[in-house]
Amino acid sequence: IQSKLPDVGLTIFSQMSQLAQQHGALNLSQGFPDFQAPEPLIAALGRYAQAGHNQYASMVGVAPLREQLAQSITQLYGATLCPEQELTITPGATQALFCAIQAIVGLGDEVIVFDPCYDSYAPAVRLAGGRTVHVPLSSDFSYDWQAFAQALSPRTRLVIINSPHNPSGATITQEDLTQLAQLTQEQGIYILSDEVYEHLLFDGRQHQSVLNHPQLFSRACVVGSFGKTFHVTGWKTGYLAAPPALTAEVRKVHQYVSFCAPTPIQLALADFMQNHPEHIQELPAFYQVKRDQLCAALTESRFTFSPSASTYFQLVDYRAIRDDLDDVAMARWLTEHKGIASIPLSVFYQQPPEQQFLLRLCFAKTTATLEQAGELLCAI
Amino acid sequence: IQSKLPDVGLTIFSQMSQLAQQHGALNLSQGFPDFQAPEPLIAALGRYAQAGHNQYASMVGVAPLREQLAQSITQLYGATLCPEQELTITPGATQALFCAIQAIVGLGDEVIVFDPCYDSYAPAVRLAGGRTVHVPLSSDFSYDWQAFAQALSPRTRLVIINSPHNPSGATITQEDLTQLAQLTQEQGIYILSDEVYEHLLFDGRQHQSVLNHPQLFSRACVVGSFGKTFHVTGWKTGYLAAPPALTAEVRKVHQYVSFCAPTPIQLALADFMQNHPEHIQELPAFYQVKRDQLCAALTESRFTFSPSASTYFQLVDYRAIRDDLDDVAMARWLTEHKGIASIPLSVFYQQPPEQQFLLRLCFAKTTATLEQAGELLCAI
Ligand SMILES: CSCCC(=O)C(=O)O
Ligand SMILES: CSCCC(=O)C(=O)O
Repeated sequence: IQSKLPDVGLTIFSQMSQLAQQHGALNLSQGFPDFQAPEPLIAALGRYAQAGHNQYASMVGVAPLREQLAQSITQLYGATLCPEQELTITPGATQALFCAIQAIVGLGDEVIVFDPCYDSYAPAVRLAGGRTVHVPLSSDFSYDWQAFAQALSPRTRLVIINSPHNPSGATITQEDLTQLAQLTQEQGIYILSDEVYEHLLFDGRQHQSVLNHPQLFSRACVVGSFGKTFHVTGWKTGYLAAPPALTAEVRKVHQYVSFCAPTPIQLALADFMQNHPEHIQELPAFYQVKRDQLCAALTESRFTFSPSASTYFQLVDYRAIRDDLDDVAMARWLTEHKGIASIPLSVFYQQPPEQQFLLRLCFAKTTATLEQAGELLCAI
Repeated sequence: IQSKLPDVGLTIFSQMSQLAQQHGALNLSQGFPDFQAPEPLIAALGRYAQAGHNQYASMVGVAPLREQLAQSITQLYGATLCPEQELTITPGATQALFCAIQAIVGLGDEVIVFDPCYDSYAPAVRLAGGRTVHVPLSSDFSYDWQAFAQALSPRTRLVIINSPHNPSGATITQEDLTQLAQLTQEQGIYILSDEVYEHLLFDGRQHQSVLNHPQLFSRACVVGSFGKTFHVTGWKTGYLAAPPALTAEVRKVHQYVSFCAPTPIQLALADFMQNHPEHIQELPAFYQVKRDQLCAALTESRFTFSPSASTYFQLVDYRAIRDDLDDVAMARWLTEHKGIASIPLSVFYQQPPEQQFLLRLCFAKTTATLEQAGELLCAI
């Protein structure tokens, strides 16, 4: 069979999680919590299933979850979204991204992405018949709008942004959003904003969502993740927010990609959101403690770093330990010989920078795991 | 925004389920059970969630579910499949179909489908850059291999078959599979076999699966549904079986469409399959009783029909009641004025036959619902 995705292998997340398992290494690679989700959320799943909510949900998502989401968006960002016409629940944020790309990108269209970026964007664009144009972020992972302006072409159809940023933890600013709006307005270029870590910002930072930037939102799809927010990445539930006309087109794709997300999971999330509004409020502090625990340990190690501003990932520079290994080799070596699995940064680039010795560590872990991680990292 | 799917509206299933709700009509339209799933399956979902299985599953699906599936396939069809390289768990059978089509169909490729057919095939083919060539089934919904042979072209890349057949309940024969194998062999045309109703055959009929037709399976993707088999359509879990090289390509797509299916749902299904092998064995008799109950009532009505051979759908001919309405109008009229919702058959065709007065009724319903349906149908 002739491959539609000839350059694609197993994702780095699967690779590193498997390698970690093989070698019994502590797995700080793939991003997921190693602690239990909130008890009332877990209990609600069992309850809704017991109560018989086990058949197809509405294609757009169950009404209570879309309503809770709309309320949460209003509270956090001040934006008023219509649950009927602007919010869609999807089986995972990855799928929301995929469907938005399929709906917007046509044959020969160009899509600008900023490297390093999440590994699903480019294959999704390719499957839609488009091609990605990769603009590197600056070395501190801030946006370079001059480089962006140079990458624009009459074929540019979509720009994908991601803040809080995986893998770096960098966050977008209001000025960035204004630049983006100005540079894309005339051509009416669409924006896909991956905001799956929207609630995980530290040190008092505020998330700048495309949801409360009306000029951008009028031609944007915003993607969020219940899995990340509620510590249930394995429940695979995400959402897409977009103005009515865009929503309608993305839903056409969504209804033939998956039709709907699982019913008892959606109802459990809605129930928990209604009864535990404090969960989202407490998230930044909850994860900041974890970041601080990891960073305190790193200070004692030979890794260098600056504390992550957001997400549940921390970048570390290992050049003081081994500058003879590139990051892929280093990630393998650490997993196989030092008992700790990470994600090499170069895999998120079309053209990785030379001599960049960076690894990504996930700190969505229990205190005990982070303690063990600290010991392992300090012993390297 | 320029639509990628300009001719697509809300699926007929969403439309009719909504109309049924609006008018308080008995909903025999969209295919889903109105009874509770097996208690041990429901209990297992709560248990695995409580036990902390709430993070990403392996991209290919949890091992126990793939192993149970392989065993079940061996028992039923005699085929030995490798769980590691030939079975993939997907968030719904619709998604397995979508990913297979994305992996196989390229720009300008032709895909043969047999009308009437499930409504997701054609949009999925279009999004992959291909186009569907529609070959009508005969008036008794059997295959017309001469018409098929004439529809073949050098551009034919894939054929999609579906048995047990939604919406008609017709089943494919060994002779059909042999014909299909012969007619597609030389060109190496791929086969996508939608077998989501694989366990629902009546009156002693045996399912002819592409899984035990080695000549076809060597270039086939077979799609099945845990949702249909275990009365949990809202759990959105399906599978794809294909030889290793094809599986590898479909997984490349799957990992960027959704990455994986929900973890606690997969584990609950595996647990239930292991502990309740009788469930699948008892399914044909379980649904045959329901078909018989509906048919007994229909005998007293002005609808004509022949008992469905498979699936959980029964076709009925309404021409003796109103031959002035086409089936879409009739389905609306019955929902709005007679309190019963069905699916018109014409929506499953590119070119619906003239003067075909057929509706599809779903009999995956409780005895009480079917009784009520019988009363409503006899009063028309
Ligand atoms: C879908 S597996 C990848 C999880 C994740 O978001 C990450 O580790 O970056
Ligand atoms: C995904 S909604 C359609 C359900 C179904 O399989 C049918 O009614 O034919």
